[in-house]
Amino acid sequence: MREVLNKAAVLHRPTKEYIYPESRHTLVCQMSAARGDLERVELQYWYRTEEEEEARHCLQMTCSLRDGCRDYYRAKVTFSGPAAYVRYCFRLEKGADVYWYGPNGFLDHKPGMKEHYFEFLWPNEGDGYRAPDWSSSQVYYQIFPERFRNGDKSLDPPGTVPWGSVPNREEYMGGDLAGVIEKLEYIKDLGATCIYFTPIFHAMSNHMYDTVDYYSVDPRFGSADLFRQLVDEAHNRGLRIILDGVFNHCGYDFPFFQDFVVHGEQSAYREWFYADSYPVRTDPPNYDCVGHYKWMPKINLNCPEARRYFIEVGKYWIREFDTDGWRLDVADEVATSFWEQFAWELRQVKSDILLIGETWGDAGRILNGNRLDSAMNYLFKDAVTDFIARERITVSEFDGRLNWMLALYPEEVCLRMYNLLDSHDTARFLYECGGQVRLLKLAAAVMMTFPGCPAIFYGDEVGVTGANDPLCRQAMIWEEERQDAELRLWYKKLAAVRHSSGSLQRGSFCANLISDEKKLYGYLRQTEDEVTAVVINASPDTAEMEVPLPYEGEWTGLLDGGKIITEEILTGKNGDSSRYTNCDMTEYRGLIKVELEAYSIKIFQKRGVIV
Amino acid sequence: MREVLNKAAVLHRPTKEYIYPESRHTLVCQMSAARGDLERVELQYWYRTEEEEEARHCLQMTCSLRDGCRDYYRAKVTFSGPAAYVRYCFRLEKGADVYWYGPNGFLDHKPGMKEHYFEFLWPNEGDGYRAPDWSSSQVYYQIFPERFRNGDKSLDPPGTVPWGSVPNREEYMGGDLAGVIEKLEYIKDLGATCIYFTPIFHAMSNHMYDTVDYYSVDPRFGSADLFRQLVDEAHNRGLRIILDGVFNHCGYDFPFFQDFVVHGEQSAYREWFYADSYPVRTDPPNYDCVGHYKWMPKINLNCPEARRYFIEVGKYWIREFDTDGWRLDVADEVATSFWEQFAWELRQVKSDILLIGETWGDAGRILNGNRLDSAMNYLFKDAVTDFIARERITVSEFDGRLNWMLALYPEEVCLRMYNLLDSHDTARFLYECGGQVRLLKLAAAVMMTFPGCPAIFYGDEVGVTGANDPLCRQAMIWEEERQDAELRLWYKKLAAVRHSSGSLQRGSFCANLISDEKKLYGYLRQTEDEVTAVVINASPDTAEMEVPLPYEGEWTGLLDGGKIITEEILTGKNGDSSRYTNCDMTEYRGLIKVELEAYSIKIFQKRGVIV
Repeated sequence: MREVLNKAAVLHRPTKEYIYPESRHTLVCQMSAARGDLERVELQYWYRTEEEEEARHCLQMTCSLRDGCRDYYRAKVTFSGPAAYVRYCFRLEKGADVYWYGPNGFLDHKPGMKEHYFEFLWPNEGDGYRAPDWSSSQVYYQIFPERFRNGDKSLDPPGTVPWGSVPNREEYMGGDLAGVIEKLEYIKDLGATCIYFTPIFHAMSNHMYDTVDYYSVDPRFGSADLFRQLVDEAHNRGLRIILDGVFNHCGYDFPFFQDFVVHGEQSAYREWFYADSYPVRTDPPNYDCVGHYKWMPKINLNCPEARRYFIEVGKYWIREFDTDGWRLDVADEVATSFWEQFAWELRQVKSDILLIGETWGDAGRILNGNRLDSAMNYLFKDAVTDFIARERITVSEFDGRLNWMLALYPEEVCLRMYNLLDSHDTARFLYECGGQVRLLKLAAAVMMTFPGCPAIFYGDEVGVTGANDPLCRQAMIWEEERQDAELRLWYKKLAAVRHSSGSLQRGSFCANLISDEKKLYGYLRQTEDEVTAVVINASPDTAEMEVPLPYEGEWTGLLDGGKIITEEILTGKNGDSSRYTNCDMTEYRGLIKVELEAYSIKIFQKRGVIV
Repeated sequence: MREVLNKAAVLHRPTKEYIYPESRHTLVCQMSAARGDLERVELQYWYRTEEEEEARHCLQMTCSLRDGCRDYYRAKVTFSGPAAYVRYCFRLEKGADVYWYGPNGFLDHKPGMKEHYFEFLWPNEGDGYRAPDWSSSQVYYQIFPERFRNGDKSLDPPGTVPWGSVPNREEYMGGDLAGVIEKLEYIKDLGATCIYFTPIFHAMSNHMYDTVDYYSVDPRFGSADLFRQLVDEAHNRGLRIILDGVFNHCGYDFPFFQDFVVHGEQSAYREWFYADSYPVRTDPPNYDCVGHYKWMPKINLNCPEARRYFIEVGKYWIREFDTDGWRLDVADEVATSFWEQFAWELRQVKSDILLIGETWGDAGRILNGNRLDSAMNYLFKDAVTDFIARERITVSEFDGRLNWMLALYPEEVCLRMYNLLDSHDTARFLYECGGQVRLLKLAAAVMMTFPGCPAIFYGDEVGVTGANDPLCRQAMIWEEERQDAELRLWYKKLAAVRHSSGSLQRGSFCANLISDEKKLYGYLRQTEDEVTAVVINASPDTAEMEVPLPYEGEWTGLLDGGKIITEEILTGKNGDSSRYTNCDMTEYRGLIKVELEAYSIKIFQKRGVIV
């Protein structure tokens, strides 16, 4: 039986998720189809003003990602003039069949220039995904300031417990900003480039997510002046600073909420909050709160005055302290229109800030439109945890989830995602691994070589461990004899490899090795003039494998500095087209044999103008 | 061979396009799958706080739309508390197979309560699609004021040509606001409820899309006071007024653009426009313009001052003249973030305004997020034109295109779309039909019974015709002997039928009859307590057909007032499951035999609590 095109799986819409201007002259376009269903996809395009067939351009699209069900095709088109009034459709090849896919579905014959086209209208500034350039090359270091370093004991609140006590939800250990300043050099030495601080504003609890005063540094942490000094000293070392913006909710003691509690319907802040009934009650609460947790009343950011207040808070810390952006708490619980306005106004204050939203799943809701630039990538964490720490999924499943995740957002966004293994809201990855450092090392290596920016939760690099909150928030270990020095060197080495490599920072992604049997996984990261090949062994056994590579010749081992010469192979139209992973997507020209120890990684690179 | 689930076609994301709050307590959820692929889809949901299986709710989703390739399943869930922290996944049945679809794909066993779920977080006000209530019950009447009625000859510009002259792009015929005021009663009598005016602000040309002064009524049309009188008199008759906002571009003589032409790089308005080079040249233009047409320079709405200016214009006419919304010219060429801000700020001025964007294709780009409420539905026009006027597509293709179009947007949006047959930018529909009034009558009937708001281009109702611009903009025919009185009565009757029927204004849509051979098409519009069945014959021959209906008993013919009693049939699980259109989606319990003359329509209705 002749196989028929899986039409139900073919998808493109002329919306920003599928076509957008990368610049005034360049469009990026995506469409998807069922996995392996198409042999060739062409983007055919021409200007609205053109009527002659000769004006039709045909560009082969690249199958750039492949999850368990779908292939994702992408193309980038550069025009000499502005990318305006561009008409386009897709030409699909499956076996001997050819289809033209346009807004009204599929034609089996070539349509004319005046029919069956999508149209991209105008490359307005801001309609693309343009986070600041710096944001794709970051290595983040997340600090929970109460537990990072006690630099000024005079600020310790009464009852402060000893550094290193078992953490609980009530007690303080005395970490502060002076402590962070002392350790900026340590952070820089590790290879991090941007510090994300969990909240530092005056708040009620040790986690600080229940803000009382959005305009002051918590006195247990220091002063505004000290924070300014911290930012300056960080910037002098090339380290950026991102604060945690908790604008979805406030602390119970936030004065405007207290006014609402006391005056209820008569409060001037009545519209800032939501109560089912009056008077306002706390037990159980009859007002909206985050997680239904009474100490954190939810703000109604559709109230214009509340919206104005929090946008001004956002501007204040950027403008007055020259911080570099915000991490935005529970961004996915906030009205989306708030983020549009917040982002627009903050960019008027400082154009190259970065806005990273918290979400635990698909971040489309906070990244679409002109909302935030990046998101905490818990989908990445979940996939790596399931694969490496919990060993619950196969290599194929891992690959499927990574590709699906990368296909959710434009490449520009994926390169800026905040890729983490753990945080103050999860168990430490090392804990998830049952304390097996070699698993953490492997996971860290995947994080450091994957599209998106790696994020180190303070202390992971020296072996700090712990179950979920409150135990993951334990005090940083500073005594060298208690630190895992080798682990720290491993993080440092990986960060250095990443910083030295354009393809690891900005390259495309494609799996070139999937072996469920041996638990081996390989992927390529590629730019115009550099390709990096990563191979990992996620099994407890040493394994040997043939790894296909897109180019022949000499490759350099980035972790060991060794050289390796490929054997010649050829896949694609004239070569072996079934033996190697995704060889219908990627042409391979070289082959190497790799031996990998249990839970280990190798990284090979080839530089020079390649394409 | 056992058929396998078409996994590549199954699609849901936890973004606003697929799940959104209809209110604080109600969520609407959509997923899609390959056409006819699934027997049953369940939405399974529970609160984040729940851990026991008993808390899992299972709701069968309705296959609500079906295009040529896909089925679209929808469900609406109402909660007693706020619809917050709702976890969910989908249970799919295909033959003997069952799958649970969640964020990581498909499981073939039931997952636990703490895994494999999507999560909807918080039903923030404004995160849904809440255009004003009034906007789903409108019948629009589009007026091109220069050609509608000359009510004050003293305003005629020098060289005004006689009313009824062949239109061209230069000359004026003298239409004005006084003329519209004279004819408000006519418009009301027709059954229209909202007038959309093409631009009335001071402009350079007879089409007025090249604005010179956004704050004044064009002197050829009248004064601001006269416009205020027009709005008042319209409102007194229950007619709403929507103006045309041309904010993407201005006229060449717009003073700020003239400043830019004269002062170039030194102009205070330099950032409002875009020039490739200086000095600014007109021939050929070296600045951005709409359609590359030099007399309409494009505004850079990412320039904060320009953005502020046009938002203030938008607010001014709403606030000062109490207009009811805007139709926004070439909305799809404007930066999307502008519409977010524009919509937010204007709603602060008057909360129940309606914003309708112009686009010629998929309107997702301007309707997503919190941008506009509605769009000009040229996809509807194109489908009806291809089917009825040009006879280029089959009934099945027509049905596929209509369903695909309805699946692009949430139902709330579809019910508010501006459904037109023609406009000042197209040939008249009657012209497309080669002057066959019976085809126009059939198309108008489809428009009046379809989801979304019908829009009458002035004069269509009395037989005004003409090829595309400038000929479609011919003078309104007011001499009764030249009007097609029967056609006007037909429009009036259809509008009355629509106004009397909740299901035509707000009902769901499902095709119940597709006969390519006989060119017969039938569809159902359904609310909780009313169902309307529409059957059309789009062929030149009389036809007889059995039409299946979802309920038995007596149905009323809405156009002729006659009664018809159904014969009993039964489809669905216990009945005939292949003979009738979409009987796997809709259960039919009654059958009628209908005879339809060439190019004719019948409408049947059943009222009373049905479900």
